[in-house]
Amino acid sequence: MTNTPVQSETADRAQILARRDRLRSLATEGGLDAILISNLINVRYLTGFTGSNAGLLVRPAGDDLLATDGRYTTQAGLQAPDLELLVDRACGYALAARAAGAGAVRLGYESHVVTVDGSALLQSAVATVGSGAELISLGPAVEKLRAIKDSSEIAALRAACAIADRALAALIAAGGLRAGRTEREVGRDLDNRMLELGAEAVSFETIVATGANSAIPHHRPDEAVLAVGDFVKLDFGATYAGYHSDMTRTFVLGQPAAWQREIYDLVATSQRKGREALVIGASAAEVDAAARTVIVDAGHGAAFAHGLGHGVGLEIHEAPALSALGAGSLEADMAVTVEPGVYLADRGGVRIEDTLVVGTDGPDLLTLTSKELVAL
Amino acid sequence: MTNTPVQSETADRAQILARRDRLRSLATEGGLDAILISNLINVRYLTGFTGSNAGLLVRPAGDDLLATDGRYTTQAGLQAPDLELLVDRACGYALAARAAGAGAVRLGYESHVVTVDGSALLQSAVATVGSGAELISLGPAVEKLRAIKDSSEIAALRAACAIADRALAALIAAGGLRAGRTEREVGRDLDNRMLELGAEAVSFETIVATGANSAIPHHRPDEAVLAVGDFVKLDFGATYAGYHSDMTRTFVLGQPAAWQREIYDLVATSQRKGREALVIGASAAEVDAAARTVIVDAGHGAAFAHGLGHGVGLEIHEAPALSALGAGSLEADMAVTVEPGVYLADRGGVRIEDTLVVGTDGPDLLTLTSKELVAL
Repeated sequence: MTNTPVQSETADRAQILARRDRLRSLATEGGLDAILISNLINVRYLTGFTGSNAGLLVRPAGDDLLATDGRYTTQAGLQAPDLELLVDRACGYALAARAAGAGAVRLGYESHVVTVDGSALLQSAVATVGSGAELISLGPAVEKLRAIKDSSEIAALRAACAIADRALAALIAAGGLRAGRTEREVGRDLDNRMLELGAEAVSFETIVATGANSAIPHHRPDEAVLAVGDFVKLDFGATYAGYHSDMTRTFVLGQPAAWQREIYDLVATSQRKGREALVIGASAAEVDAAARTVIVDAGHGAAFAHGLGHGVGLEIHEAPALSALGAGSLEADMAVTVEPGVYLADRGGVRIEDTLVVGTDGPDLLTLTSKELVAL
Repeated sequence: MTNTPVQSETADRAQILARRDRLRSLATEGGLDAILISNLINVRYLTGFTGSNAGLLVRPAGDDLLATDGRYTTQAGLQAPDLELLVDRACGYALAARAAGAGAVRLGYESHVVTVDGSALLQSAVATVGSGAELISLGPAVEKLRAIKDSSEIAALRAACAIADRALAALIAAGGLRAGRTEREVGRDLDNRMLELGAEAVSFETIVATGANSAIPHHRPDEAVLAVGDFVKLDFGATYAGYHSDMTRTFVLGQPAAWQREIYDLVATSQRKGREALVIGASAAEVDAAARTVIVDAGHGAAFAHGLGHGVGLEIHEAPALSALGAGSLEADMAVTVEPGVYLADRGGVRIEDTLVVGTDGPDLLTLTSKELVAL
């Protein structure tokens, strides 16, 4: 049952360097002498290095510096061979001192990530060097860059989504979605199939929600038993090379009742409208509205109490947020979910979710499992 | 194969209130008018509430206030029925404003957890109220309280360790540790057994390291195949009611070679010395030294390049650190691991680890699997 071993692919070194170069341009535009990256996911994005203790210094002249501790020396050399390595347990402190010592007076840092105590340490590092260096808040600049995926990222997302598609197909083919099983059993079965098919891990705790539980948007699987006549909602994903897939499908065990078919069709129509609204230049609020209007017009607006979707990549939730309050507009190569739902308390609920990439020829659908109403 | 459903036990309300009262005493001693808790694990410890967005205000008069957003109103009422609830998405901001509005001039906050941007928000919250309130760094006060476990915590740790013991016994009984399987297969098998036996989750990514991989302290399971004559090192744990177990055992497939028996016996002796040093009042460095001396004296000091152990509870790594650099001394009801290892590069390594609770009659051993050298 075990497939060929899957190695996490490393993004192309040129693409990784291009990411740092985009950040470098921002540094130059912002009048910064260097940028200190502390968010480990951002370090991974900008270097390929996946250790659990790291920092990165990005400098206008291109002499970037990766820091980690002695446990990771070998790994850093393999994953980020083009970067100079600074081995020090206190990565941020060491990099800040190095930057200040090299004359960086205006040092950008991630004030949305660094704690108050951590920033005091950074201050002491630059003060020790005595260069009069100043810490400048960079804001979530790297998170904004990450919203636009390059080709290696889209390939990883596609692979992650394919694992989830194949695992669900195998679960159904094996009769895994049947009356009598518990939500926990189904969840573990699905998770194991993703791992056997090459997932590094599951993207998040798999949601299996049956019967009335399907009306709870983020129900945790429990000992509830699947029964004929009930909805079964599965929200799950795989990670591959660090990238997360995210998909929700809702089934009916046996023949759907009229009310089940009605809300299923409603959510499916809303979801299609949402996908069709994924056009370059559309605002996040417009995309949300395109899907939401369908549900509001049918009188179920109050039963769709969450945003339409979110960006997805190295994190399961990242920029952009597709909701009424979401900021900004869609750009080419953003990866997002579209996941409207209608939840009728104590009866059941439906959510349908895809992961897609925004593009000039319309969105590229990465989660390929059918969205027809399937009666199992 | 599925056992009786396991519900996470909620700690006794009186014990949870006693935790807040200990923090309240610290507030009074420190001249604070209120304490804002932002670390979600600390909020859970002090309230029982497990939502993913929360904050807690602890006040001298006992009128504590839990904040969370609308998704969790029902859950907060069930898990923390004795606490007044403030429903607001911006938990920290809302609580800080409430504290300042009620006249809290000196507001303690977790500066080791709150980001620079987050603290600016808190500042604006108290400034808006106009009370002239001041944010005071509290430090890791709750983490220090958490190092001493109460009876409900020890019960949860014991249950978590029992799940891990039973899962390993079942794995061995089923012939799961056999030549020809890959590390990944063994790891998934062990993980599934823990989940079937009632684990909420695994404590951390299970380590399965065979042959030369066993010489890598934190090897991630890969497609390496178990072979006769090799060490197999398993480092794994289960969570139960939020508490983590942590255990390492090392086996030999087939008859051990002389060098394998030698380093196994060495590590076993070191581990026993470490356990015997778990005495109330012993310093962290003394405990580390008791185990380390055995390995150093045998000429393998350089092959034991990590600390002896760590506290374990709601987090897999928490206070106290048992290492040469560890601060403080052992107190009754601290839960810690003791896990020396010897790693011979390109040959193999042994680590033996237990979870124990420090007590007046010697340590209480929670991980009960035999530490004899087992040849499978």
